Amino acid sequence: MKLCRYGAPGAEKPGLIDADGNIRDLSNYVADIDAQTLSPETLANLAGVDPTTLTLVGGEVRYGPCVAGTRQFVAIGLNYVDHAHESNLPIPEEPVVFNKWVSCIQGPNDPVTIPKDSKKTDWEVELGIVIGSQAHNISEDQALDHVAGYCVVNDVSERHWQAERGMTWDKGKGFPTFGPIGPWLVTKDEVGDVQNLAMWLSVNGKRVQDGNTRTMIFDVKQIVAYLSQIMTLLPGDVITTGTPPGVGLGQKPEPWYLKAGDVVELGIEKLGEQRQDFVAWDAAQ
Amino acid sequence: MKLCRYGAPGAEKPGLIDADGNIRDLSNYVADIDAQTLSPETLANLAGVDPTTLTLVGGEVRYGPCVAGTRQFVAIGLNYVDHAHESNLPIPEEPVVFNKWVSCIQGPNDPVTIPKDSKKTDWEVELGIVIGSQAHNISEDQALDHVAGYCVVNDVSERHWQAERGMTWDKGKGFPTFGPIGPWLVTKDEVGDVQNLAMWLSVNGKRVQDGNTRTMIFDVKQIVAYLSQIMTLLPGDVITTGTPPGVGLGQKPEPWYLKAGDVVELGIEKLGEQRQDFVAWDAAQ
Repeated sequence: MKLCRYGAPGAEKPGLIDADGNIRDLSNYVADIDAQTLSPETLANLAGVDPTTLTLVGGEVRYGPCVAGTRQFVAIGLNYVDHAHESNLPIPEEPVVFNKWVSCIQGPNDPVTIPKDSKKTDWEVELGIVIGSQAHNISEDQALDHVAGYCVVNDVSERHWQAERGMTWDKGKGFPTFGPIGPWLVTKDEVGDVQNLAMWLSVNGKRVQDGNTRTMIFDVKQIVAYLSQIMTLLPGDVITTGTPPGVGLGQKPEPWYLKAGDVVELGIEKLGEQRQDFVAWDAAQ
Repeated sequence: MKLCRYGAPGAEKPGLIDADGNIRDLSNYVADIDAQTLSPETLANLAGVDPTTLTLVGGEVRYGPCVAGTRQFVAIGLNYVDHAHESNLPIPEEPVVFNKWVSCIQGPNDPVTIPKDSKKTDWEVELGIVIGSQAHNISEDQALDHVAGYCVVNDVSERHWQAERGMTWDKGKGFPTFGPIGPWLVTKDEVGDVQNLAMWLSVNGKRVQDGNTRTMIFDVKQIVAYLSQIMTLLPGDVITTGTPPGVGLGQKPEPWYLKAGDVVELGIEKLGEQRQDFVAWDAAQ
């Protein structure tokens, strides 16, 4: 299944994508796409629903974040060999873990605000894992039992705040609007082999990232099992798993950062596409 | 006001501490001590309630976390000069920011589980700030307008995972049970000068930390304003503000870490006290 949330910010309704790519209203079955809906039991029930019996949602609609109520937005750094190289950092021996503040989560096509005075706002197409059931101290063999599905994430990053303001990365990763997720939460059964998905990102129409999840250093099972050692993963949590080469920081002959007016488009095979207008910071926000 | 949450885990009710130190049931006024209750308007309404008109809660009751539904548990590192020294780290020029996973939050007197195979579990008494209203890009002068109150936090830390497992601190700070908060959320009007509160922590009856919030490097106003530059603070968020000297890592002649059977007691003037039994990791958990 492809699940989604559609409508105005804060008033999204749950939806299902039908065989023709249209949104169908799921409100009669679940209140939202959230921790409760993502349990294996509820997902199994939804899988039995005939999409053609659901109301067709017509017209242009906004996609909201594909999951509601995320309590933990966990991020893995340097998880593609070539991206570690372009960042001038060593290949990690175990996953690098940081945090994106959940207040940065937004819809996949909502505008992204460049932070006040920022000169180093950057892009990162990433595979997002959505947790379906609570997990602590689980093995790699058990890991996928706790995964509901996957989504596209743009791990928008401010490199100055990430790397030049002291000790941890968390400062540069969670500015408001820095967490577009969606458009869809695609359940794991529909994705199939999650370690063989093409991924790409363009800035103003120029392709800058071209990768595939097969070149991840730590795969989905390893990441989920690893994180479950150090924390309790909760249903609705999103784990973004690192980016392939081609971020602005790594451009030659010199880094290329985003400015107001730029348009970023990105996508992952089977998981859909995002498009963001980057806009200037405004004191009125 | 001193607000609290009491009862069994997951089924806590809202309470108010009366002049005699007893819990009074607030259920008739608010559903919980959460984002909604912490708005300036609701707090003002509650301040008009006569505690003697509320049902007295008798007997021994468990305190839950003093705020429910926290979405962001932000932490400041090395915020006391002497603690930076004992950690062999330079005095920061701006706040060091890291994350505690919200799944680690628990009641102030609940047992703390030493992580599997951990040999470096440590304590940190800290002042917690509880946010009352959303804040982004606010000034130091505006900061306290967005603060609902304060609480005691034990920023339990696993030093091996914090410092020896690669690049960021977030791995060692959010194990399950590593975030006791409470017993009370004391509103800012009742606290008065938050930069002059004595704080202490004992292990097995031996006093190891003795400090005062007046020796913080960055004070509450500076921390809230600073964080509001890099993220949106949400009502119910908790910011823990760093610890004074005397953690296990800094003990002489050698570090002293916690083991199963140890008892940690801590408190902050006007904010109450916590007591935790440290217990061994158990595969059945």
